[in-house]
Amino acid sequence: MCTVISFATKDHYFGRNLDLDFSYNESVTVTPRNFVFPMRAREDLTTHYALIGMATVLGGFPLYYDATNEKGLSMAGLNFPGNCHFFDLQEGKDNVTSFEFIPYILSTCETVAQAREKLENISIYNEPFSKEMPNATLHWMISDKNESIVVESMKDGLHVYDNPVGVMTNNPPFNYMMFALNDYASLSPKQPENTFGTPLELYSRGMGGLGLPGDLSSKSRFIKCVYTKLNSLCGDSENESVNQFFKILGSVEQQKGLCEVKPGAYEYTIYSSCCNVEKGIYYYTTYNNSRIHGIDLHDHDLDGKELTSYPLVTEEPFAIDSRK
Amino acid sequence: MCTVISFATKDHYFGRNLDLDFSYNESVTVTPRNFVFPMRAREDLTTHYALIGMATVLGGFPLYYDATNEKGLSMAGLNFPGNCHFFDLQEGKDNVTSFEFIPYILSTCETVAQAREKLENISIYNEPFSKEMPNATLHWMISDKNESIVVESMKDGLHVYDNPVGVMTNNPPFNYMMFALNDYASLSPKQPENTFGTPLELYSRGMGGLGLPGDLSSKSRFIKCVYTKLNSLCGDSENESVNQFFKILGSVEQQKGLCEVKPGAYEYTIYSSCCNVEKGIYYYTTYNNSRIHGIDLHDHDLDGKELTSYPLVTEEPFAIDSRK
Amino acid sequence: MCTVISFATKDHYFGRNLDLDFSYNESVTVTPRNFVFPMRAREDLTTHYALIGMATVLGGFPLYYDATNEKGLSMAGLNFPGNCHFFDLQEGKDNVTSFEFIPYILSTCETVAQAREKLENISIYNEPFSKEMPNATLHWMISDKNESIVVESMKDGLHVYDNPVGVMTNNPPFNYMMFALNDYASLSPKQPENTFGTPLELYSRGMGGLGLPGDLSSKSRFIKCVYTKLNSLCGDSENESVNQFFKILGSVEQQKGLCEVKPGAYEYTIYSSCCNVEKGIYYYTTYNNSRIHGIDLHDHDLDGKELTSYPLVTEEPFAIDSRK
Amino acid sequence: MCTVISFATKDHYFGRNLDLDFSYNESVTVTPRNFVFPMRAREDLTTHYALIGMATVLGGFPLYYDATNEKGLSMAGLNFPGNCHFFDLQEGKDNVTSFEFIPYILSTCETVAQAREKLENISIYNEPFSKEMPNATLHWMISDKNESIVVESMKDGLHVYDNPVGVMTNNPPFNYMMFALNDYASLSPKQPENTFGTPLELYSRGMGGLGLPGDLSSKSRFIKCVYTKLNSLCGDSENESVNQFFKILGSVEQQKGLCEVKPGAYEYTIYSSCCNVEKGIYYYTTYNNSRIHGIDLHDHDLDGKELTSYPLVTEEPFAIDSRK
Repeated sequence: MCTVISFATKDHYFGRNLDLDFSYNESVTVTPRNFVFPMRAREDLTTHYALIGMATVLGGFPLYYDATNEKGLSMAGLNFPGNCHFFDLQEGKDNVTSFEFIPYILSTCETVAQAREKLENISIYNEPFSKEMPNATLHWMISDKNESIVVESMKDGLHVYDNPVGVMTNNPPFNYMMFALNDYASLSPKQPENTFGTPLELYSRGMGGLGLPGDLSSKSRFIKCVYTKLNSLCGDSENESVNQFFKILGSVEQQKGLCEVKPGAYEYTIYSSCCNVEKGIYYYTTYNNSRIHGIDLHDHDLDGKELTSYPLVTEEPFAIDSRK
Repeated sequence: MCTVISFATKDHYFGRNLDLDFSYNESVTVTPRNFVFPMRAREDLTTHYALIGMATVLGGFPLYYDATNEKGLSMAGLNFPGNCHFFDLQEGKDNVTSFEFIPYILSTCETVAQAREKLENISIYNEPFSKEMPNATLHWMISDKNESIVVESMKDGLHVYDNPVGVMTNNPPFNYMMFALNDYASLSPKQPENTFGTPLELYSRGMGGLGLPGDLSSKSRFIKCVYTKLNSLCGDSENESVNQFFKILGSVEQQKGLCEVKPGAYEYTIYSSCCNVEKGIYYYTTYNNSRIHGIDLHDHDLDGKELTSYPLVTEEPFAIDSRK
Repeated sequence: MCTVISFATKDHYFGRNLDLDFSYNESVTVTPRNFVFPMRAREDLTTHYALIGMATVLGGFPLYYDATNEKGLSMAGLNFPGNCHFFDLQEGKDNVTSFEFIPYILSTCETVAQAREKLENISIYNEPFSKEMPNATLHWMISDKNESIVVESMKDGLHVYDNPVGVMTNNPPFNYMMFALNDYASLSPKQPENTFGTPLELYSRGMGGLGLPGDLSSKSRFIKCVYTKLNSLCGDSENESVNQFFKILGSVEQQKGLCEVKPGAYEYTIYSSCCNVEKGIYYYTTYNNSRIHGIDLHDHDLDGKELTSYPLVTEEPFAIDSRK
Repeated sequence: MCTVISFATKDHYFGRNLDLDFSYNESVTVTPRNFVFPMRAREDLTTHYALIGMATVLGGFPLYYDATNEKGLSMAGLNFPGNCHFFDLQEGKDNVTSFEFIPYILSTCETVAQAREKLENISIYNEPFSKEMPNATLHWMISDKNESIVVESMKDGLHVYDNPVGVMTNNPPFNYMMFALNDYASLSPKQPENTFGTPLELYSRGMGGLGLPGDLSSKSRFIKCVYTKLNSLCGDSENESVNQFFKILGSVEQQKGLCEVKPGAYEYTIYSSCCNVEKGIYYYTTYNNSRIHGIDLHDHDLDGKELTSYPLVTEEPFAIDSRK
């Protein structure tokens, strides 16, 4: 499935792994301030904050998987099958479809606090993008430099959870995820103290982490990624920060062959992204191209009306060093 | 500590993570056939197979961490503290120091079978490289296209183990490592069958892997890496094979901050390597440079006498995509 | 803390472990039909079903820990600290204190279905039994021969959960408990199939259960006890059934010294009970008396007005076999 | 399979669970000093220490499963399939069959130290008791008040291990068992400290034990039983000591239905024993009789020549308490 994290050194970074068994031709897409987002059940978004993120552009509409706006607010949608429920039009509510949700929030909010206010009256409207494109079953993480929240639309309504750890994966619902962390309280990058009752041998470094799960199911990825992020150490430079961010995501990367979704089909980490939210630079790697590429939001005319899309560089020659 | 794997698609690949809290200024180093390896307790190696691998070159001697020869045999030394024991000079034995061991085997053997024969009479001699450079406590994996073995010099002598899984990490001794795998027999990339006795929910993909360890201790890395390698799927192309190889190593990568070796000091994956054994191309990435670099053995005069070393490119600018 | 189970062979059995660090002088207590239960916020219970169970009798009131009525309905209260919340008097509700809850349900209901109906209008009233006796923080399991439910009074109201596994322990809330079982779907009393990817050794019987938790925390006891109960096999005789019931409870027994509640104080399984619900015989063992004692409800005048209490036989001489 | 422990409060206790899917009509059997043990490959044992223990008596020979002698030395044989290897007659060795091994050691040794000396020259001779009775595949624990050892006869000879934890189960070999404990160093009856990196909830007592295995495979039973024994607390009285001993064994009891040995057949704890080594009283319970029975060695004429056997009381009526 997927993993998203919010991470800070000197700057704030936001990004995710997309884990699927197929690709929708996604591209890094810049939406300038005057691009018109048509909306299904409310007035269109005509002037708004500029966005950068990963999207499949369909019929001129950027279906964002994750994005960041020029004010430092970020948002990502991740798979939430079984638990996700969207609603018919609700009288008196802001009815926003799931594919409009990221553009709507990022177009109009600068902070999580502002997003929270908007969420008080939002209902996720179940109209699909098109007949051929049924709604994905999603939940969302929204982050600014100071905090993160998780938004889950379920049968009993819209849940908004504080996310003190700044990580989200997939099922189960976020309150169950946070509860699951309790069982790992004693983990540590330090060697454990021996309290077993008889002399024992610390035969390896890193034994304070024993018990951490390493499989690819969504709860295990959540636990491992939270632990890795919370204990991560890195310098403040852009190079160190971005590399460390990709290492944290790498701790829960899905390798091809390890997660069967149906006989013979396997999901894997199609891309990993890391947006320097403050600089507006969106970095990514793909499964077969570990070189970090970046696109700079501010390298564009942000007052324009047209999308700019960058197809992913999914393969490129290795750098061959030579003396000749 | 470290992890080494042997992996095959169409070609055969061999490489490792080096996990330490400091670096010895290692470089990719090519040793041509006529470079003289001085030996402490036997005749020098004057004419031999050419080698490529990672080494710290000290006083003109390449202290190899891992290397491959032109005939397709590879060997790596990994930390084995506590269990490792080297010996005084043994009458009637081939006395080879630990730092000579990789050059000696790779200079003279084409296959694991030939290495096995040599090992029958070898004793690892405890003379250090220099006063300032005490012997590292090591054990070794030797691999060709068809098989791998593990060599452990312990107080009770030299142990040579078949390694049917082609992975090695650190402690405990290899027979204990292989035994540890037994507890994970039921893991699978497929969803588990429910045999618990009451209806349950498969709430995530990948639940067949539940129980796989995810911490960084050496036994856990062994189990996770073996499982990842054995279930890995990838195409035959060089690009796919090399990327998949680095993904498998990435499954047990050590992130900075996650493994404390003493207060305030942390080991991490300094470099990862992947040698296409058949083509003689040695690829690597470093902690802060995920772009894959390669050095081609056959890009050198293999009949020469001088070492050629390539300092690691440990940092380089990100690739910035732009329309301008 | 505690564990309660509902179990059936030919007959239906209901019982529990009481795990605490101190005892309240509890006794097996029979309440006949005409004993008057004074109620705090509603009319007293004057004529009702007869009960048998474990209680501390205080000021003439049987504070039942667990009990069964003559119609085959059983109920037990177990510790639920942190999550439990009781309410001020609620207008229009049946206000029942926590210590009246077991008598009230068992006095008036024959089945879980009838209890469910009563629960629709019940609010657990926060008045304590006395100034010296603050309310215990409890949740409850109610069982008849066909089904079990769990009742949890929390800040957001009274939750009633179906309990398809017929086991309850303590925290977390029951929906979290049931979710936790999902991770153990692949466990089985049969040997596992090897799907790891390399030949492995099944070195012991019982390896299909690997992963089952064995510690004494409440979630682990729940998982282990459910698994043990669901896979349990036993004959239909009273002797086999009762012994098997105590074995299932024994799988999560708390040994002295294993669970510290504060420095130097340890909780342990003070008593284990097993009521043959259909015969009305209440069996028990205590920590230092493993011999099974029983008290028969029908051995009493059920139309009486007075409680009959049987102090627990907490120690008795071992049976010494001799030829002399 | 089985579990044996050595345990001390004021007195020293030794006993075991016998876990099998069938019974050999075993009985508590007293062997007086002048009973003649016929030996296959050495002189018969004519005058020796008196023994008490569990045995199947066949053709007048007590095939002991576990026993204690009048001097305070105890010994038990437990299943060790796959790894166990017995030898042809060895010139110059004390050749002792596996069924003679317990009588031989307990007839002639007072302490583990004396047993160690004898073991230096012993070879376990592979002659079976009879054509119909092939040799069981066994290893042994020998204990006195001060220490325990494990004896394993394998293809590479007889291994004698110190057993600092005083517990033995079955496979793997004992050096692997002891190594397995290392991974559980951080377990404790105390609540864990939260070092995870974010506030978490200790939702239950006993969370310091999280990670302890609870399945019935032999390595898991070893780990759980060692942990339970090492952290056990109990008073010095005979009643408390014996009950606590059975609780420790109870922590790894095998319930019927939980461990399938072949389709439809399940092993379970047929009997549990606890010998007060100093008093010479052998206590036991059986699967369907939890009442503790005892037989006193000193209740017999120890200078006699004849075995005395006590059939196990495998079922008896419950104690029914009544006011009538």
